[in-house]
Amino acid sequence: MIVTETQLRQFTHNIFLAIGCSEGHARLSADVLLRSDMRGIDSHGVARLSGYIRLWEKGRINPTPDIRIVHETPTTATVDGDAGLGLVVAPFAMEVAMQKAEAYGSGWVSVRNSNHFGIAGYHALMAVEKDMIGFAMTNASPLVAPTFSNERMLGTNPMCYAFPAGQYPPLIIDMATSAAANGKLEIAQRGGKQVPEGWIQDAKGNYTTDPHALKTGGSLLPLGSDREHGSHKGFGLSATVDILSAVLSGANYGPWVPPFVAFLDPPTDPVGQGIGHFLGAMRVDGFRPVQDFKDNLDNWISRFKSASTINPDQKVIIPGEPELEAEIDRRQNGIPLVDAVVKDLNELAVRFGLKGL
Amino acid sequence: MIVTETQLRQFTHNIFLAIGCSEGHARLSADVLLRSDMRGIDSHGVARLSGYIRLWEKGRINPTPDIRIVHETPTTATVDGDAGLGLVVAPFAMEVAMQKAEAYGSGWVSVRNSNHFGIAGYHALMAVEKDMIGFAMTNASPLVAPTFSNERMLGTNPMCYAFPAGQYPPLIIDMATSAAANGKLEIAQRGGKQVPEGWIQDAKGNYTTDPHALKTGGSLLPLGSDREHGSHKGFGLSATVDILSAVLSGANYGPWVPPFVAFLDPPTDPVGQGIGHFLGAMRVDGFRPVQDFKDNLDNWISRFKSASTINPDQKVIIPGEPELEAEIDRRQNGIPLVDAVVKDLNELAVRFGLKGL
Repeated sequence: MIVTETQLRQFTHNIFLAIGCSEGHARLSADVLLRSDMRGIDSHGVARLSGYIRLWEKGRINPTPDIRIVHETPTTATVDGDAGLGLVVAPFAMEVAMQKAEAYGSGWVSVRNSNHFGIAGYHALMAVEKDMIGFAMTNASPLVAPTFSNERMLGTNPMCYAFPAGQYPPLIIDMATSAAANGKLEIAQRGGKQVPEGWIQDAKGNYTTDPHALKTGGSLLPLGSDREHGSHKGFGLSATVDILSAVLSGANYGPWVPPFVAFLDPPTDPVGQGIGHFLGAMRVDGFRPVQDFKDNLDNWISRFKSASTINPDQKVIIPGEPELEAEIDRRQNGIPLVDAVVKDLNELAVRFGLKGL
Repeated sequence: MIVTETQLRQFTHNIFLAIGCSEGHARLSADVLLRSDMRGIDSHGVARLSGYIRLWEKGRINPTPDIRIVHETPTTATVDGDAGLGLVVAPFAMEVAMQKAEAYGSGWVSVRNSNHFGIAGYHALMAVEKDMIGFAMTNASPLVAPTFSNERMLGTNPMCYAFPAGQYPPLIIDMATSAAANGKLEIAQRGGKQVPEGWIQDAKGNYTTDPHALKTGGSLLPLGSDREHGSHKGFGLSATVDILSAVLSGANYGPWVPPFVAFLDPPTDPVGQGIGHFLGAMRVDGFRPVQDFKDNLDNWISRFKSASTINPDQKVIIPGEPELEAEIDRRQNGIPLVDAVVKDLNELAVRFGLKGL
């Protein structure tokens, strides 16, 4: 099924209104999810809408949060999300970071007591629009084992860095710190396919190509896959995200992070509140004139785009390019939704007495 | 050959004095190199001393630099290293970042016109001593090919994040963004060994296990090794380091970064000045009381240390732990130097009329 951006946005907006979100929060939450669908990151858009709603049904998401700064200096702050949707808590925190950057050059906000914040890129791109460099990270439900372990201790904990360019679109690195994101496993599961060695291990810690191995005690592997290929680096990056997002804010960290899925209860011995994020912004003109930076970044991008290729048909991909191409395509041609997602969304519509897709 | 810390420190100090460094700069430069040897990172300590000296002989290192801030806001700055040793330029920049953090919560410094800065961990740990979180990155000579390319476009561009703990030593992630650091290739070369698939490719872009492949047009691979295992993420991390260190400061970036080895001339069409670094510091108490953070980080570390293991003999390694163990061992038992390094250092001694090891 193909839907237009407007149609899907209105639908999503109405669902958030139905659970009691304010008009502003519903609009913002829909915007974050739609941005993901528009950018071709189907795993983090409306495909997750019913997941958020189920958490709300369990009382784990507060639709009318009092999001507030609980600690701050001129350029740092800790924000308490009051168990709100990460989709509104993270943009609040990024606004705080950007205001601090406006006044002092940079701003950094660690967030506790939040929930899943959608794609990291949405938040980092808020800074780019103001000629700032944007940073966004979040911890997440434990699915990844550290090097040498077979225990799920860390989330896929994404890191995102976004830079404003001149004639080119922004350069955005938005990556899970695991070898493969969970969404890729789900695609293999749906398609009945095996996954490459190096993505997951079984309960005993052996490589497996079975995409269902996480259901029987398996775990995702950190970026690098094994020690010899640098999985301790992926583990270190994931740890960095966890510490900046949660140890610094007072959120749950490591294996205590509450699961995104409502059918699994959060740990009964929490070490903090909710999940954690880390957002940051630095003014480019805090370092050099914006135009000089953009000119150099354009030159960087041109040079990398023209790097010698192994296969003449496959050029070097600049981070953020495929997402922009998806956005252009979907603006023109609409957003394709798989049947399972359409069914899911229409069930939500029935649940709230709204018009389906 | 085994040498004591004091002996090697004095030797190194004297060499830096011999090229015209001030007493303070010679002491600091020796301290940065010794820290690396003490921490067991043999590739970045005195093994590189002759490399710095050869760059000085070529006129590419200024032993008496006028290191200065050329642009700043309350929490950001660009520093020009005046072609000095990165070993003194980076600590200067980190001091600037820490002073800004002291006053405003955080401080961020991008550096141009510098040279190799030793181990990133040295600089990041400066912040940790003041109960700050330390960040250190640098770009480096192009050896790594982006995903889909067979051209050396990026350095092994390390990222370092360092966090103060309570009862445990600081947690330090200090990692090359390539699958393997260049030092590991050198070890294989010296030992006449092959390297694992996934570390390097030959000139055509095929995996090779020949550790000499870089001499015939090969390249290191980004963390992740290939597209399927996330090499685009390693590429993205390396790009982030390059942009923060050099596009932001006005240093050379990507394939224009001048080589560390003196027998290769820098590109004749530079796009900036020298190589670039990025240093940062954030006060922990800008987010929450220091003791709360340290207590939680201690708990994080304990929990990860006790994670279930695949092999009972191999526990999870906390980032920074092996380096600390090396430091304790070498303080007690001295620093082992391989013959090639001893020979190299003694040649330097002869060159400057100093006493050898």
